[in-house]
Amino acid sequence: MNILVVGGAGYIGSHIVKQLIDSNHKVVVLDNLQTGHAKAVTEPAIFIKGNVKDKPLLRNLFTETSFDVVFHFAANSSVEESMKDPLLYFDNNVSGLITLLEVMNEFAVKTIIFSSTAAVYGDTSEKVITEDNETIPKNPYGESKRMMEKIIQWCHTAYDINYVVLRYFNVAGADLSGAIGEDHQPETHLIPIVLEVPLSKRDFITIFGNDYDTKDGTTVRDYVHVVDLANAHLLAMNYLLEGKESTIFNVGSSTGFSTLEIINKVEEYTQKKIPVKYGNRREGDPHSLIASSKKIESVLGWKPQYTDLNSIIDSVWKWHTTHPTGYENDV
Amino acid sequence: MNILVVGGAGYIGSHIVKQLIDSNHKVVVLDNLQTGHAKAVTEPAIFIKGNVKDKPLLRNLFTETSFDVVFHFAANSSVEESMKDPLLYFDNNVSGLITLLEVMNEFAVKTIIFSSTAAVYGDTSEKVITEDNETIPKNPYGESKRMMEKIIQWCHTAYDINYVVLRYFNVAGADLSGAIGEDHQPETHLIPIVLEVPLSKRDFITIFGNDYDTKDGTTVRDYVHVVDLANAHLLAMNYLLEGKESTIFNVGSSTGFSTLEIINKVEEYTQKKIPVKYGNRREGDPHSLIASSKKIESVLGWKPQYTDLNSIIDSVWKWHTTHPTGYENDV
Repeated sequence: MNILVVGGAGYIGSHIVKQLIDSNHKVVVLDNLQTGHAKAVTEPAIFIKGNVKDKPLLRNLFTETSFDVVFHFAANSSVEESMKDPLLYFDNNVSGLITLLEVMNEFAVKTIIFSSTAAVYGDTSEKVITEDNETIPKNPYGESKRMMEKIIQWCHTAYDINYVVLRYFNVAGADLSGAIGEDHQPETHLIPIVLEVPLSKRDFITIFGNDYDTKDGTTVRDYVHVVDLANAHLLAMNYLLEGKESTIFNVGSSTGFSTLEIINKVEEYTQKKIPVKYGNRREGDPHSLIASSKKIESVLGWKPQYTDLNSIIDSVWKWHTTHPTGYENDV
Repeated sequence: MNILVVGGAGYIGSHIVKQLIDSNHKVVVLDNLQTGHAKAVTEPAIFIKGNVKDKPLLRNLFTETSFDVVFHFAANSSVEESMKDPLLYFDNNVSGLITLLEVMNEFAVKTIIFSSTAAVYGDTSEKVITEDNETIPKNPYGESKRMMEKIIQWCHTAYDINYVVLRYFNVAGADLSGAIGEDHQPETHLIPIVLEVPLSKRDFITIFGNDYDTKDGTTVRDYVHVVDLANAHLLAMNYLLEGKESTIFNVGSSTGFSTLEIINKVEEYTQKKIPVKYGNRREGDPHSLIASSKKIESVLGWKPQYTDLNSIIDSVWKWHTTHPTGYENDV
């Protein structure tokens, strides 16, 4: 298959690119390197630096290669930043997708796998969230992803563009090869941030709010290993290529861990004390997000292999200890 | 006040421009004339031909004039077309608004009156729709307007942009001066289409679906006179300039007329027989849309003056009989 991966140099995109390459697909990666790293793109995938909003560039790519499938990962994805500068999110995420779909449609490329998020659900009172749950995002990041889902769905109705939308819960971990991992500047994800304490890059962890309506007052999230997530993408692609019905799947572990529990697990794993300070709640943060992954398990036959939190921490630790400066000094 | 009216050469925009000019405001109209008419812009408003997505042009306009308020009417607005080509709607409507808000924010212009629609509600089971009703649009046009509302609301949270969103039900009628009216090519609104029969421009009316869940099986809509609607915009502007809270208002008459009832009323008014044919339902058309306008009446003190359907028909008839080719041969 000829596959375009938009945002394929980022943390999640690069892990999907690796699995696509490992499965012998031909991959073109388009990424503006705003948060991605050219070095994260597994060879022999072709890397093109550019913006998804650059329609002439997209037209060139689609002219050069007849793509069978497009994976779309490119998006700004910080909840906190989105609360401060929502237009950045609507412009890059929503307008970016519109441009991509326009060009897909022009070139009759009719298959897209779209990277969405549990943030579309907002602050649901459901303990375990199914795909039918109402979607009332609590922040512009989640709002932008909800809009993107709707745009894709209307394009399905009008132009027969087929889609799988994958709503990720909290993604963590790194490829087991140790070759690629997560490198955000600054890091915004909990597990790598917590590991910065035993890695002597940070003195303490700030927990934003301990008065949430959860078991210990800190926010609860559902963690899925990036390798399992990447596998879900390949299953989704094969599902669409078999002509099956466009749909939305949650991708999570169906288990929730609180921020405090994550910190305790990392202390256990590294045998180092992690000092904690408490700050105010961050705007836009829901209390608890736990996926029901029954649908993806039954429809795609997805079976996550790394459901143990330790296997996630282990792969992150391996990546960070072997790449103390991320991709910076990688060759 | 210095006021920018984006889409001010269109049917609804031009009626608001006229009332703003009549109230001695300084008005700049930006319109790409895709469906608008330069002749519809009441003097001495300044007319600029251009697209809301043209950021350099917007920056020039905002540099030249320090605007107090922006009215935003520019949008593609055909339900039927949106079902066939949703990307046109997401691109022009959603991306267009994002660009406008970016420039407003750059120039610290913090007040917007936004033209939304009852189409955001979708096919509600409520007999009379209040602003708290859930919003599940049935077509990409309504979806695009729902997105635009959400974008404005997040900009309020983040940048203190103040807004009034007006959700129009079916707008009809023409200014009582006879100087401006509705001129769409092709016409898509029911009342002017029905009047084309007695005006000898059309032989019969096609009713799309007579098996809807309504009193006579034809779709039911709530008609508001464009002069009353324009008045609602001026009240909304004054409300915001007094520093009051940003919010959403329905603008309708709280009364529903079926398509058949409209045809009968026009027959009565013109004393001419209007032949009817029945076609299939159009995709994306809700059964019934009737506004509760209690909120705008109590908060803004809005009192529609032309609630009688005859007064709407009368003004449309006057416009069409005095302007048989619309603005085309107007001087």
